Amino acid sequence: MLKLRRVAIDTPRENVVYLARDCPIYRAEKFQGLAKIEIAAGGRSVLAVLNISDNAHLLRPDELGLSEQAFRQLGLPEGSDVSVAQAAPPASREAIRAKVTGARLGYAEFESVIRDIVANRYSKMEIAAFLIASASFLTTEEVLALTRAMAAVGRRLTWPEQTVVDKHCIGGIPGNRTSMIVVPIVAAHGLSIPKTSSRAITSPAGTADTMEVLARVEISAEEMQDIVRAVKGCIVWGGHVNLSPADDILISVERQLGIDTREQLVASILSKKLAAGSSYLIIDIPVGPSAKVRSLADAIRLRKLFEFVGDQVGLSLNVEITDGSQPIGNGVGPVLEARDVLRVLHGDPAAPGDLRDRALLLAGRILEFDPALRGGKGSLRALELLESGAAARQFDRIIAAQGPSPNIAAGTMVEDVLAPRSGVVTGIDCYRIARVARMAGAPTDKGAGVDLFKKVGSPVEAGEPLYRIHAEHATDFRFATEMAGADSGYALSKAS
Amino acid sequence: MLKLRRVAIDTPRENVVYLARDCPIYRAEKFQGLAKIEIAAGGRSVLAVLNISDNAHLLRPDELGLSEQAFRQLGLPEGSDVSVAQAAPPASREAIRAKVTGARLGYAEFESVIRDIVANRYSKMEIAAFLIASASFLTTEEVLALTRAMAAVGRRLTWPEQTVVDKHCIGGIPGNRTSMIVVPIVAAHGLSIPKTSSRAITSPAGTADTMEVLARVEISAEEMQDIVRAVKGCIVWGGHVNLSPADDILISVERQLGIDTREQLVASILSKKLAAGSSYLIIDIPVGPSAKVRSLADAIRLRKLFEFVGDQVGLSLNVEITDGSQPIGNGVGPVLEARDVLRVLHGDPAAPGDLRDRALLLAGRILEFDPALRGGKGSLRALELLESGAAARQFDRIIAAQGPSPNIAAGTMVEDVLAPRSGVVTGIDCYRIARVARMAGAPTDKGAGVDLFKKVGSPVEAGEPLYRIHAEHATDFRFATEMAGADSGYALSKAS
Repeated sequence: MLKLRRVAIDTPRENVVYLARDCPIYRAEKFQGLAKIEIAAGGRSVLAVLNISDNAHLLRPDELGLSEQAFRQLGLPEGSDVSVAQAAPPASREAIRAKVTGARLGYAEFESVIRDIVANRYSKMEIAAFLIASASFLTTEEVLALTRAMAAVGRRLTWPEQTVVDKHCIGGIPGNRTSMIVVPIVAAHGLSIPKTSSRAITSPAGTADTMEVLARVEISAEEMQDIVRAVKGCIVWGGHVNLSPADDILISVERQLGIDTREQLVASILSKKLAAGSSYLIIDIPVGPSAKVRSLADAIRLRKLFEFVGDQVGLSLNVEITDGSQPIGNGVGPVLEARDVLRVLHGDPAAPGDLRDRALLLAGRILEFDPALRGGKGSLRALELLESGAAARQFDRIIAAQGPSPNIAAGTMVEDVLAPRSGVVTGIDCYRIARVARMAGAPTDKGAGVDLFKKVGSPVEAGEPLYRIHAEHATDFRFATEMAGADSGYALSKAS
Repeated sequence: MLKLRRVAIDTPRENVVYLARDCPIYRAEKFQGLAKIEIAAGGRSVLAVLNISDNAHLLRPDELGLSEQAFRQLGLPEGSDVSVAQAAPPASREAIRAKVTGARLGYAEFESVIRDIVANRYSKMEIAAFLIASASFLTTEEVLALTRAMAAVGRRLTWPEQTVVDKHCIGGIPGNRTSMIVVPIVAAHGLSIPKTSSRAITSPAGTADTMEVLARVEISAEEMQDIVRAVKGCIVWGGHVNLSPADDILISVERQLGIDTREQLVASILSKKLAAGSSYLIIDIPVGPSAKVRSLADAIRLRKLFEFVGDQVGLSLNVEITDGSQPIGNGVGPVLEARDVLRVLHGDPAAPGDLRDRALLLAGRILEFDPALRGGKGSLRALELLESGAAARQFDRIIAAQGPSPNIAAGTMVEDVLAPRSGVVTGIDCYRIARVARMAGAPTDKGAGVDLFKKVGSPVEAGEPLYRIHAEHATDFRFATEMAGADSGYALSKAS
């Protein structure tokens, strides 16, 4: 038996076990070829990939070291007796193999794969294999089965209300923070809208990152239910609620692979909505040359997939295909986006009209779900709740219920990106703007990002600022300004 | 700038960089989402995945730690000033994405992917993505392009001889060590046969592992050329000759994923043969219910793929489809297999006839490549060289040239697996036998494995030994005997 040691190394999302090369009990080399080995003690066990140590400071030959996550999962004190075994391949491995060779999987197979992923029986590499084998090779029935499996593993919320509404945007458009306006409007109207949002995957900010500027978002499912009971709505980080633990793992691998398939997207979103217990759902699909969805045809294919799965799992779901030709609002990055949201809610003249209009459109559609409301009156009701300040007051209640955040300011290192010549803005590359904002430090640095001064259609003079880069750290600031210098992401017409 | 530190942790095939969580210069969290980060110093740089350290013994806040491989690759002394940047995605990443979405790739794209893999620009996860996206989704033209790309990256041997022959078995049949008999026969005849073999991937022994029982196999390309010049043949480990560095990396990922596709197999084998500079090649495809290839139809499809690619790359290649219904020979595991090989070469009455016949068949086919030999006389010549002892003497010369190994004995922990009842052996599961031998410790423990006493068709009495398990270590011994106890891998008829 070896003595357990906590080596205090954080190996993101991958359990690592450290064995000394001169370990007297196990020859580390023997395990080297294996995807995972199993560390067992008492009744408990944890799976991890092997690293071999020649570092006497890290662990002694008679010790077995575990990375942070693995140590927490095993949940035993340092010094415990532990043994090592070749991990038996996960029961669902055959299902993944079958998928790799192009087979169609059924619900039971997907559920076993998802359970093994959540039980951490797969290495990232194997999860990547599953994702790629599935990428663009899932039938609609398989997407349905995968959605159900993902929702089944993890917890599921239930609500006393008849009507529990929700909205979700597939993302890809910088600054598109409609949820933070839609939720207070809908809650002010009296419908329950327990919104779980994601943190940034590859973008400079997810709604959870931006909401976090104003309020705490790492909230348990129980607390979330109390909040919604009290103020009808919330905007919390879904990862913390643990509604779809499988999805959080899958997303972390997708992020690193830089892949993002339609099938995975639908399963990911709908499994979470299903687990969140919402009965009515609006999905926003922005379409544009630099958006996730590039053409109307693609948007319609995606819409139909959402509708098919939604109908099968009993979600009453409407899809809105919206304009994703450029960023929404002015701010890109948590603090700057939060500023735009507050401007819209408070009727500030500086509020970005496109963000306001988009939020009203979606809120209106959601309010149509209210049986008590006369058909077609949703938009009017949304407008009324926004302009009366009811939505703003409701947002304050939601923030108070979640717990306000200390004030955070925009990054103080600033540089303006200037128009090389006069003309009219004919296009803004969402992907490029997102990259610049991310380089500047968003979302890790809440105050980092870019603030757009010009949108498509704006006339600009040579030398006039197109946008301002905000950063909090010198290295990031340099990365971002260099990137913007190479390509600002703006397209200008010839001056007229 | 941070100070470079060698942390002396061996992270097999994956570069790892360690940053202190409280690093004053870079906030580790910011890099956490990335697949890889780039460590640069002077003109040099290396890519690695990030681990975050809270362990003061591992590195100080102002230090940057590198795992062994990464440290070696960077090739700078400890204490050097190093900086960190977000690694730019590999140039070939778009090609992999395209493949993921089902596109066909051309030579240039495959070459860029292979170069980036060899340059270590991809994480294992990304390599897995490429493999899976390619698995069963490569056209024959793509297999050809991939083969050429893999051969192009890495070194290529040239030979003065007109006729340089080689043989390769696709593997999957325990105990099938024909190369160690074929090479000496062919070399004794006077044809040059520079054989590079693989180590075990998922099997209890590769030919390189078994040859290593008798001679050194980690031999440089230069030395290999000297040996072949001197004694016409060799049996060395291909991985060390570095003929196809990409393949070694791909195989290590395939091994851990447990996948093994036809397309990858052909590209892997032929790229290495191409790089080895052989002009004539025999490929052995064993077919059986528990072999890699399960049906004659599959074998023929595979044969045609070999033939198509072989013709295109200018390899004169013949495929032999052979009987893979049960293990070949008696021993499974390096030492036990080496014993069988020597018995065949020395005409020992205990020599397994099936191994002898298989080796003679293949050697005969190869000798037919000799223009000087009368057509159809290959088998006869092979038999003559074996029975005259010429092959055995040639093998001794080859061993002497490569450098003999110290004698190693079979594992001393032994247990016999007994027949549960009387009957006739109707089947032996190659996969199961391989698993038992591997569990017993093969190939890491050279003396571990199983020794088969009965083959298909043998009558057995209840309680009579079917095979003997050999192990060197208690844990492995227990694993193996337990596994054999659960299922011996033998099928028996009712007693007649």
